[in-house]
Amino acid sequence: MVKVGRRITFNAAHRLNNPNWSEEKNTAVFGKCNSPNYHGHNYTLETWVEGVINPETGYVIDLSELKQILKEEVEEPFDHRNFNLDVPEFANLNPTAENIAKVIYEKLKPRLMQFKVVVRLYETENNFVEYTKD
Amino acid sequence: MVKVGRRITFNAAHRLNNPNWSEEKNTAVFGKCNSPNYHGHNYTLETWVEGVINPETGYVIDLSELKQILKEEVEEPFDHRNFNLDVPEFANLNPTAENIAKVIYEKLKPRLMQFKVVVRLYETENNFVEYTKD
Amino acid sequence: MVKVGRRITFNAAHRLNNPNWSEEKNTAVFGKCNSPNYHGHNYTLETWVEGVINPETGYVIDLSELKQILKEEVEEPFDHRNFNLDVPEFANLNPTAENIAKVIYEKLKPRLMQFKVVVRLYETENNFVEYTKD
Amino acid sequence: MVKVGRRITFNAAHRLNNPNWSEEKNTAVFGKCNSPNYHGHNYTLETWVEGVINPETGYVIDLSELKQILKEEVEEPFDHRNFNLDVPEFANLNPTAENIAKVIYEKLKPRLMQFKVVVRLYETENNFVEYTKD
Amino acid sequence: MVKVGRRITFNAAHRLNNPNWSEEKNTAVFGKCNSPNYHGHNYTLETWVEGVINPETGYVIDLSELKQILKEEVEEPFDHRNFNLDVPEFANLNPTAENIAKVIYEKLKPRLMQFKVVVRLYETENNFVEYTKD
Amino acid sequence: MVKVGRRITFNAAHRLNNPNWSEEKNTAVFGKCNSPNYHGHNYTLETWVEGVINPETGYVIDLSELKQILKEEVEEPFDHRNFNLDVPEFANLNPTAENIAKVIYEKLKPRLMQFKVVVRLYETENNFVEYTKD
Repeated sequence: MVKVGRRITFNAAHRLNNPNWSEEKNTAVFGKCNSPNYHGHNYTLETWVEGVINPETGYVIDLSELKQILKEEVEEPFDHRNFNLDVPEFANLNPTAENIAKVIYEKLKPRLMQFKVVVRLYETENNFVEYTKD
Repeated sequence: MVKVGRRITFNAAHRLNNPNWSEEKNTAVFGKCNSPNYHGHNYTLETWVEGVINPETGYVIDLSELKQILKEEVEEPFDHRNFNLDVPEFANLNPTAENIAKVIYEKLKPRLMQFKVVVRLYETENNFVEYTKD
Repeated sequence: MVKVGRRITFNAAHRLNNPNWSEEKNTAVFGKCNSPNYHGHNYTLETWVEGVINPETGYVIDLSELKQILKEEVEEPFDHRNFNLDVPEFANLNPTAENIAKVIYEKLKPRLMQFKVVVRLYETENNFVEYTKD
Repeated sequence: MVKVGRRITFNAAHRLNNPNWSEEKNTAVFGKCNSPNYHGHNYTLETWVEGVINPETGYVIDLSELKQILKEEVEEPFDHRNFNLDVPEFANLNPTAENIAKVIYEKLKPRLMQFKVVVRLYETENNFVEYTKD
Repeated sequence: MVKVGRRITFNAAHRLNNPNWSEEKNTAVFGKCNSPNYHGHNYTLETWVEGVINPETGYVIDLSELKQILKEEVEEPFDHRNFNLDVPEFANLNPTAENIAKVIYEKLKPRLMQFKVVVRLYETENNFVEYTKD
Repeated sequence: MVKVGRRITFNAAHRLNNPNWSEEKNTAVFGKCNSPNYHGHNYTLETWVEGVINPETGYVIDLSELKQILKEEVEEPFDHRNFNLDVPEFANLNPTAENIAKVIYEKLKPRLMQFKVVVRLYETENNFVEYTKD
């Protein structure tokens, strides 16, 4: 088995907030990430696809196909957007790195069913998460 | 003469827009950066200070002093903020990397008058600017 | 299950040496790392914590709690120190990257008992280790 | 158990091509990577070796031994070479990152039999693969 | 005055050779870089453009224009090519990093006449050059 | 004119201290960097050499010559050493990044007299200096 990784980047705004909590509790838990007018990140996404090497191509997956899937499922809906206001998946979901990675996994997996899929998302150079259900 | 550089990072949201233009023109010039609900970046700031080596310390500048200046002038007012909505300097100034670098230079220089100061701001790994009037 | 990673850096001096060996054998095995007056590194530590997403916060772990644990267990005792002379855990333990990672794991784990914990330590850009018992 | 990683780099030329296919199909599948006069990469190889810490050295593996193995099996045969024309393993094997990682694993493993071995190969900052049979 | 930098990457093969020299002299001077079947690199190009901030846009240069110039002058002719065999400018010019940077500068400058232009080319993480005539 | 840069790394221990000061003043000025048993860094050195392109080689400087100079003047005397105890230039000179860069410049310049030389030294990813007298 071989894993293939593809790195992409996108830029987005977000705010961490639990609408069921008081502002005091939101500030205590989320600190500056609860800043009301949003802040943002250069997100880096590594998508790892595990499978077998196709003997005809030497590829685990056709890279042009993987690029197209990442473009449609991640770059177009998320890049230069506000997670809280522009992305339907986060209408009722706090856009932490954990939840963004989970949403990305759930969007990518149906298009990569024959592979084991792992997503690693870097929010900053110091904070990152990895998500899979495979 | 010796230059000393100090790197810090901060995260902020912004939107590029000229309120005197039609939405069509804003989209044509700023593209996705004109997205109405903001997007954001992990900004990396390098501040370069040029001076002479103090023979008693071996420093060009006391690093704890430089750290404090950067904290007060850059990190506290900009980190986890929205440039367009939260930062007074951009009430009537488009928060491009060029203008953010210029504002940072103008905030830092009065506190570093005895030095030549250059600021380099990375908006992404692919886009960066350098500003000085010295 | 989701893994959350947090990167910190610290600077320390060390020397590799087995006091039960002759100086010839120490030099043969440890080379320049046996240099008697110590050398040092900018260590980079990634701490990975695996758990489930708390639906109220969207976090696997409260980041301010993880930061505090890393500060108390790693930064305060190790940063700007000499592993051989200043850190009790290495009084009789050679401070290789492997052993430093093991000691860090053993200091962090009791404070993160509900999580699977993995530590990855970069000694240089070319040498790194990963340690877990989970 | 502890994993130790060692990073090396090498530069090589290659071309992706299936000689059993028409030129049209090669171009459709491999795109620019099928360019007839070759292109090249700065490959970065991480070799991960998993074992137990030797209590006498504090090492999982003697680093000078690992360096020598990597020099003989990877750097000397691959660095500044053309995978398609100069490296016998690729005489009838397409030099994709997947296949290069597999060949490296198969060359390293017999010299590291007592360890679990994983190789990770970065072809560019955006494309990378990981291979193991352990 | 403000400088704006834009980073792009491209992959290419090359070989260093002076056809007026004996093979012995070529090997003595260029070492492994004279390997006959070419090797290659992930080149990273930073293009720095110095000018004044346009008060209407906040930009020194319209980024979409700069991207298009870099695409036409650098990416399309150089990416996934062999400098020695595929790029006319190197038919009689040794494709060292110095000469590649010079050729890139001379291709970019006529399209950026109103700006001071500097190009910095990274051949590897350890070797890089900077070229300008401005 | 063209500038050529070469990056090397070395690891060393140091301590910042002015022996003419009280321990209180040393701690006030140098903080943790005054830690008595030393700490250390992975130093990264960029050496920039400015000259003209030799038309026979396409090089500004023969890289094997530059590598040899860096090995003799920097790597051999500094790598895996303690600046305060092992390096004669710092017997009476505080080994700040500024002073290390100055010493490196003064060691390299006599061997690179026909070139303009600039050295940039990274002590950490956040602290760096640049030194030249040319």
